[in-house]
Amino acid sequence: MNSRVLGLAPSLIRAIHDRKRPDAIDLGMGQPTLQPDMGPFQEALDWVRENGCPYSPNAGFADLRAAIAGHFRYPGLDTADQVLITVGSTEALYLAVKGLLDLEAGDELLVVGPTFPAYQKTAYMEGLPTREVMLDAREDFAPNADRVLAALTPNTRLLALASPCNPTGRIWPEAELARLADGLLHAPRPIYVLWDEVYRDLYYTAAPPPSLARFYPRTLVASSLSKSCALTGLRLGWLLAPSEAFTPVYKVHQLTISCAETLAQRAALAIFRRPQLLSAHRAHYVAQHRALCQAAEELGLSLTRTEGTFYALLRLPPRWATDSYGCAMALLERENVVTIPGSAFGAEGFLRLTFVAPIDQVRTALARIAQFFAQHSA
Amino acid sequence: MNSRVLGLAPSLIRAIHDRKRPDAIDLGMGQPTLQPDMGPFQEALDWVRENGCPYSPNAGFADLRAAIAGHFRYPGLDTADQVLITVGSTEALYLAVKGLLDLEAGDELLVVGPTFPAYQKTAYMEGLPTREVMLDAREDFAPNADRVLAALTPNTRLLALASPCNPTGRIWPEAELARLADGLLHAPRPIYVLWDEVYRDLYYTAAPPPSLARFYPRTLVASSLSKSCALTGLRLGWLLAPSEAFTPVYKVHQLTISCAETLAQRAALAIFRRPQLLSAHRAHYVAQHRALCQAAEELGLSLTRTEGTFYALLRLPPRWATDSYGCAMALLERENVVTIPGSAFGAEGFLRLTFVAPIDQVRTALARIAQFFAQHSA
Repeated sequence: MNSRVLGLAPSLIRAIHDRKRPDAIDLGMGQPTLQPDMGPFQEALDWVRENGCPYSPNAGFADLRAAIAGHFRYPGLDTADQVLITVGSTEALYLAVKGLLDLEAGDELLVVGPTFPAYQKTAYMEGLPTREVMLDAREDFAPNADRVLAALTPNTRLLALASPCNPTGRIWPEAELARLADGLLHAPRPIYVLWDEVYRDLYYTAAPPPSLARFYPRTLVASSLSKSCALTGLRLGWLLAPSEAFTPVYKVHQLTISCAETLAQRAALAIFRRPQLLSAHRAHYVAQHRALCQAAEELGLSLTRTEGTFYALLRLPPRWATDSYGCAMALLERENVVTIPGSAFGAEGFLRLTFVAPIDQVRTALARIAQFFAQHSA
Repeated sequence: MNSRVLGLAPSLIRAIHDRKRPDAIDLGMGQPTLQPDMGPFQEALDWVRENGCPYSPNAGFADLRAAIAGHFRYPGLDTADQVLITVGSTEALYLAVKGLLDLEAGDELLVVGPTFPAYQKTAYMEGLPTREVMLDAREDFAPNADRVLAALTPNTRLLALASPCNPTGRIWPEAELARLADGLLHAPRPIYVLWDEVYRDLYYTAAPPPSLARFYPRTLVASSLSKSCALTGLRLGWLLAPSEAFTPVYKVHQLTISCAETLAQRAALAIFRRPQLLSAHRAHYVAQHRALCQAAEELGLSLTRTEGTFYALLRLPPRWATDSYGCAMALLERENVVTIPGSAFGAEGFLRLTFVAPIDQVRTALARIAQFFAQHSA
């Protein structure tokens, strides 16, 4: 057996969900509750009826790759050749970490936290060293280029960061991206960035989140349709990579899964041909976010500032500030509310709340949390 | 960049296909030309209309896992817990090689050839040592347990073999499986077997191919719907694994792709509920195989004995016996016929012919090959 694989820490998120009762209010799982538009599925089925269900080329259907490149128009990533169609963004993250880092050369991954744990776990599984640089909780985890640049080492070959970020909900602003790009361009050896923008279409700011791909040429962009279109089960993602980085990620992809699913790719093409579908759910989450913030304020609960995603971080009272896992377990047992301990993301002292449930349920859950804190925070 | 990934040899199959002209007769790609039954797709779409398109559990939907376990009823693999739903059998092979072998412990993969090159390539990518044991071309690559057992070393921890086999079309008979199991059971340290039965439903023998899973408890079974149901693009496969082997493959699966596609899983469930769909295409391939053998005989071409799959191996005349690649390239250039050099599978001196094209095209292609040999084999 692979000892590195067996050594992987079990998922905290899964441990919590495994204890969830059927009637619990779920502020845990990042799974949209909206229904997807059926039009793209119908178009995909019509295509299969006419063409059967053959393999696509390994990198994906050429028309879908071109449509994605043309939609984003990121400099240097704006042709079909730069687009790899993946099984959700999960596979895209995996390919980037595995393909770009060289174990023998001592390459390191640098992860900007708090963040989704997949980057580090993948690196651990591959035997690759990882360092973490944490944004400041006292600044509500505001993106900070100087802090990230100061954490680079001569061995850093890949930097992973997300915007909008799960779990912080923060968005990297243009000014910080420009500073980050400038610093990276002056690094003595080339550094690639894995830029995870899977929550790109879910923002509460006036303008859409800017992408590092407009500032820095060694950016690999990972994303998917999962969150924007309530299509987590479609497993349709993409990795955009500059030419020299495309080869290794493509080779890993070929051996790992061969190619993404044909019907899912045809559905994705239908979506990119009607790109308003990508932002169709945004207004819903904006309203949910507003209601969440209002309810929290009324109940005296403290949320960090969020600008996107469908997550918020709840600041824990001192009694639980070093035990978010214990707090989440207690909330599950006593209040029947599922939350995720911040420690799962490197954000000890916080709980991650997902606000995809009907807003009445979200309000009820917050009221139970407030009551729990009143009773158990002495 | 990952130097092991960059060091992967380019695919010979792909090199050939990249030179294919649009009007070529294709005896290369293992892609069924039959159309899939649309019923399962329609059922899957109805399910999505009602339930949306959420993530499945990481290992797959419980009802699909139970249906697959119940269909095969392999001893020790006959409960849903033993079934992992994968992105085609490609992912299943990847998971088994990566999950079961320990680099630090010096574990080795032993591959029974000639065979599809994915097992070795995956091991190479993971830095794992591989040994190959070749079946005998003079015996038409007949399965031979003694030969395989003699090739085991103290470091062999995983043995990979396929039945029916791509490219030989040979099926392991019960007597050889019993001998193989007996030998493996007496190995000083536990040896797992990756048993690839993706062509299980495509056989020309009187009885279905027997499975090693009925003879040997440390068997992992990899398969998919790709070949039996003309669903290569559905990317729906499975890996059946004994409990102690399930944990590592499941963990790799979680980090690599999270879970298989929801709609594909619902379509697969519809198929396992009407299992006659799994063998619906068999009669077609039996007829194709018969026509191929007849045409070859009439043209004086020598095929090895085949019992299943939709491939056959063509024996090359002495002029080409050590250059199947050159022969395949010349056939492509001069006769506009796509074939795959046997060297891609460790079967130098042969060409692999796929007989999924309409039988008139297959006959025309064979006639061109015979004419080419007459002209260029002096």
